[in-house]
Amino acid sequence: MQSPAHGRRLDAVTGPFTPRTPRVVAARRLHRRRDRDTAGRFLAEGPQAVREALDRTDTVVELFGTPTALDRHADLAARAARADLPVSEITDEALAALTETVAPQGLVAVCRHLDVPLRTALARGPRLVAVLAGIRDPGNAGTVLRTADAAGAGVVVFAGDTVDPYNGKCVRASAGSLFHVDVVRAADPGAAVAGLRAAGLTILATTGYGDSDLDDLVDHGRLAAPTAWLFGAEAHGLPEELTAVADARVRVPLHGRAESLNLAAAAAVCLYASARALR
Amino acid sequence: MQSPAHGRRLDAVTGPFTPRTPRVVAARRLHRRRDRDTAGRFLAEGPQAVREALDRTDTVVELFGTPTALDRHADLAARAARADLPVSEITDEALAALTETVAPQGLVAVCRHLDVPLRTALARGPRLVAVLAGIRDPGNAGTVLRTADAAGAGVVVFAGDTVDPYNGKCVRASAGSLFHVDVVRAADPGAAVAGLRAAGLTILATTGYGDSDLDDLVDHGRLAAPTAWLFGAEAHGLPEELTAVADARVRVPLHGRAESLNLAAAAAVCLYASARALR
Repeated sequence: MQSPAHGRRLDAVTGPFTPRTPRVVAARRLHRRRDRDTAGRFLAEGPQAVREALDRTDTVVELFGTPTALDRHADLAARAARADLPVSEITDEALAALTETVAPQGLVAVCRHLDVPLRTALARGPRLVAVLAGIRDPGNAGTVLRTADAAGAGVVVFAGDTVDPYNGKCVRASAGSLFHVDVVRAADPGAAVAGLRAAGLTILATTGYGDSDLDDLVDHGRLAAPTAWLFGAEAHGLPEELTAVADARVRVPLHGRAESLNLAAAAAVCLYASARALR
Repeated sequence: MQSPAHGRRLDAVTGPFTPRTPRVVAARRLHRRRDRDTAGRFLAEGPQAVREALDRTDTVVELFGTPTALDRHADLAARAARADLPVSEITDEALAALTETVAPQGLVAVCRHLDVPLRTALARGPRLVAVLAGIRDPGNAGTVLRTADAAGAGVVVFAGDTVDPYNGKCVRASAGSLFHVDVVRAADPGAAVAGLRAAGLTILATTGYGDSDLDDLVDHGRLAAPTAWLFGAEAHGLPEELTAVADARVRVPLHGRAESLNLAAAAAVCLYASARALR
């Protein structure tokens, strides 16, 4: 049943979907990585993420929203309906079941996984790539993804035991950037690095104990070539097998008395040094 | 009663302090800002923070630790005892009452507030200053404090309704940097900016809508002079009265499709651009 005014469907018998409606139950399972991987789907919540997802072809599968949110964001509901996607009203309880934030903004889209093979991403000739190797914290991973996008990196590789890019917290921390760049999932980080090098990218590993100072690399023009930056977990850094094969092991200079930078800050400094050199 | 082997005191009658021991009850109150401000004290948890606090004169007031932690970090317990500070054993329950993390590492120091007047900080001639104006998230504030320290900023100003620098989450996110730089609390951000300018610092306000591109400032050598950077809250940015009086309103260039950077990343890029220019 279709309401032309808002382009949304309602179950004529039961009204808005509840947490027990089968479609909501199925979507809710996507909070779990195993179920995301099986279905090849994930959840994007809030109007900003839904808009970015709708901007991509073939990404949104269906849209859920509270009546209030579907009214407030009638443009998004109409776009989804024009694309022949199911748009369903849900109760506040169903919204709470589908979202993870304290103040969800009423809209949740079920989306198809959008990662591409490394080969496909490299065929587009990216000049700046970020590789997340072993980053388990989804907020950190999403923040680095957002920063990489801002710095102009066309490809972000989630390698090895890095968090799943479709983890809800990662999706939110990316602030839409998940939908902007080519996301690659690489089970074997070493193979990914070999592929990046074969594509002509310089491989730079960030580590607090690196023998190359970032400022020296800039001074010697070594960031002016296409580059893939490797970032590891804040606590224990990159695995030795990755730092060993990199073209350089790079440390961000510490001018004061801090012992280190946090991951998001170090990634921002490195990626923006490249962005400036690649202008 | 003193145990010379570990330099720690024990209540001979009751054993380790419990959550109901008056000294623990008093220390626990320091989780609340009002009580911190009244007492002029705050809590620093974990061996790293305790070590940094002990490195400063006149900062630690007393040290609490579980028997296991005081054994493992006997050097810290001994240093505190040599400085004639009370070192007290606490139960695991008292530790849980005094700490905010899921896996506290057994040690908590009661510390004196360590902020200094702006005048005092400026008398040391800092070339790089970070001003946090209206940053309410303690994790963000602590991260920017850490990044500012790493970039060589000697002074970090907590201005206006920015979170209290002694908030537990801010202290932890600063990863020791709270103890490294001159921390200033300024109730009136406008007066603080006037003081910074009178000291000869260029005032640069970061804003997504700035008319000056960071790369252009670098290209024209405008970061080579002593600089104070103003950072606002991620959600709504700096207040108009501060952007209006700055020498420039600076935006970090967005090369990709991200709409913005998060605060920690933007601060890292700006502060490190200054650090490089000031080398």
